[in-house]
Amino acid sequence: MSKVIATYLVYDQKKNLAKKAESIALGLTVGSWTDLPAIDQQQLRLYKGEVVSIEELPIDQQADTYFDRELIKGLIKIAYPTRNFSADLPAILTTVFGKLSLDGEVKLIDLDFPVELAKQFPGPKLGVNGVRERLQVFDRPLLMSIFKSIIGRDLVFFETQLRAQALGGVDLVKDDEILFDNTLTPFEERIRVARAVLNETEQQTGERTLYAVNLTGHTFELLDKAKKAVELGADALLFNVFTYGLDVLQALSEDPEINIPILAHPAFGGAVTSSTFYGVSHSLWFGRFLRAVGADLVLFPSPYGSVALAKEAALGIAKELTQDSASWKTAFPVPSAGIHPALVPQLLADFQLDSVINAGGGIHGHEQGAAAGGRAFRQAITAAQANIPLSQAAKEHPELATALRQWGGQK
Amino acid sequence: MSKVIATYLVYDQKKNLAKKAESIALGLTVGSWTDLPAIDQQQLRLYKGEVVSIEELPIDQQADTYFDRELIKGLIKIAYPTRNFSADLPAILTTVFGKLSLDGEVKLIDLDFPVELAKQFPGPKLGVNGVRERLQVFDRPLLMSIFKSIIGRDLVFFETQLRAQALGGVDLVKDDEILFDNTLTPFEERIRVARAVLNETEQQTGERTLYAVNLTGHTFELLDKAKKAVELGADALLFNVFTYGLDVLQALSEDPEINIPILAHPAFGGAVTSSTFYGVSHSLWFGRFLRAVGADLVLFPSPYGSVALAKEAALGIAKELTQDSASWKTAFPVPSAGIHPALVPQLLADFQLDSVINAGGGIHGHEQGAAAGGRAFRQAITAAQANIPLSQAAKEHPELATALRQWGGQK
Repeated sequence: MSKVIATYLVYDQKKNLAKKAESIALGLTVGSWTDLPAIDQQQLRLYKGEVVSIEELPIDQQADTYFDRELIKGLIKIAYPTRNFSADLPAILTTVFGKLSLDGEVKLIDLDFPVELAKQFPGPKLGVNGVRERLQVFDRPLLMSIFKSIIGRDLVFFETQLRAQALGGVDLVKDDEILFDNTLTPFEERIRVARAVLNETEQQTGERTLYAVNLTGHTFELLDKAKKAVELGADALLFNVFTYGLDVLQALSEDPEINIPILAHPAFGGAVTSSTFYGVSHSLWFGRFLRAVGADLVLFPSPYGSVALAKEAALGIAKELTQDSASWKTAFPVPSAGIHPALVPQLLADFQLDSVINAGGGIHGHEQGAAAGGRAFRQAITAAQANIPLSQAAKEHPELATALRQWGGQK
Repeated sequence: MSKVIATYLVYDQKKNLAKKAESIALGLTVGSWTDLPAIDQQQLRLYKGEVVSIEELPIDQQADTYFDRELIKGLIKIAYPTRNFSADLPAILTTVFGKLSLDGEVKLIDLDFPVELAKQFPGPKLGVNGVRERLQVFDRPLLMSIFKSIIGRDLVFFETQLRAQALGGVDLVKDDEILFDNTLTPFEERIRVARAVLNETEQQTGERTLYAVNLTGHTFELLDKAKKAVELGADALLFNVFTYGLDVLQALSEDPEINIPILAHPAFGGAVTSSTFYGVSHSLWFGRFLRAVGADLVLFPSPYGSVALAKEAALGIAKELTQDSASWKTAFPVPSAGIHPALVPQLLADFQLDSVINAGGGIHGHEQGAAAGGRAFRQAITAAQANIPLSQAAKEHPELATALRQWGGQK
């Protein structure tokens, strides 16, 4: 019988993890058990949740002090028969963390997908290899940048920023996630302008740059809008998945006409992942779930900047996106915020070849402008991959030299 | 200029709330300000976020101990021009709590909707009055009950439970939120069986009972499925809105063909609301937002049971759903979990006339069965509204007497 196994981190004041685990396993499936007649037990056996394991963890003094009581901290694993739910994340989340999300100190840490279930989720349509194919870049991390201070600006501003970034050797330029449909830079116009600019820069540089347009508006307009974007020549979609729903991203990914990469933005995701005691783990929320529903690239806070994630959490997300899977292609991790050229060797060491180096201020803030900012990153990437210290590479590359002076040397 | 004002509870280690507030106001709108040329400031003034107020709160020793540093606790209010986003919750949430949700200890406490914006959200289609019209019940709180241990059971079991509840005088019977489409009790069959049973019980009792079918499956199937449900005679929809998205509920509510009440379930909602430091307040998440997008009834944890919400939080949700609004109809609060007949006077005092008394075990667990369980509640409601002590009413009502013996007397 196929089951999904959910792992919960619990802080239990009742000091009886076994009882708590059993009450979860029953409460989220058949409701009751020991008081049922044998014939009912026979019928319901296939639907009953099972406690897989209970692991008591060392006392968490910090938590005890905070809650002002002695708590047992532990990891509980429960197996839920897949026959209990339809093969969609709304049903799965409702089962394994619906009512339970409201029931005290419990965090959903992990959720496995048995192969039969995993196959019912699309995974990335293009994935790492597909995105690399589009760019014809196979041997280095990709370089991404973000429009900066675009709110309230017009298409001329948009075009100028985009051109500079593309000329700087940036592989992907993404919309600001807070740029919605608006009269100054309407959705379709942005795509048209970007298409023209990027065709032009490709002629100049010989390198392709992909523009990720922010797919926004009401949910039931998104499929048509995404198809229109493809038709107009959009290269990729940026999507604030957590303000819509994981299943909405899945629908975008599953639509064969929407054959461009989807870049999932973590906006609002911190509302679910930030607490130690509640919500869902970073690796599950930003990692496994987004890969399952079909994100090709996933942004999340880098472990270096001011909006920072603990390094373990950031690496955990990247691992979920890139590890081997029988069912899903790999997706690009895009650790973001606080990235400048001096961090490139560290990024390469931490996130490996199949990752995206993504900068905003680290490109636009370059003293010689965004194109030079892009070039500084590309120079840093080339040096780091050849194990040449950035300070040495900077001797031959003035853009990199400036960047190192601006943001400090190699970390 | 129309603006939305967001209120954040922050714990700031930088000890400079003013600086933090300014960085939020700029970072989530125009990006930068003081270093901009005057001509750019001129152009961007209409788009710039503004700090409305900064209120430092007393030191929170518990938080300082937990984080092991001195934190300034405060409430920050920021105004965002509505011209910055489209009038949909994904855009609004991305603006006011997108990136910010990932940026340290910050919780979104409140978000006002200026009238012009509120009018672009539907609010409840039927609301309190519309649901009362359907039931022809105007002078008492409604009584709701839940199928119990329905997973793994067939349509005969479903029919038997539904009939007993309806005969007990229950106004609304809702599906278990973890019951999805399945071969034993398929979606359409449940509606057909319920329609037949409830037409029959109405003949017997003279009272109408509404059945809320769980609307599940992939997002882009939901509109058609909901219309099919209406066509087959479903009385109401149960919807696990937080595993889909607030905007999905809005689409259901806005569709004129889906002219039946929508009952929003809080499943997974606790992942966003439970922490003191992160996420969104209960009153906003379960209250204002669900009313804005069109829930007619909203379940949330009662302040009485084992899966409990603090009383202030539960009352805060109810207030958001029922207070006067120029733009939206009122919605029914449905405080749930741990409800039995002896709590009815307390429920009436706390949640007033326009609320729903909702029980699972408190109805099905009645020694004389679910019909008697329902009757005990109705007897308790009648007594409580007449200010008659339950113990006195129980002398004339054996079902209530049994319930009081089983669950204890009036609280």
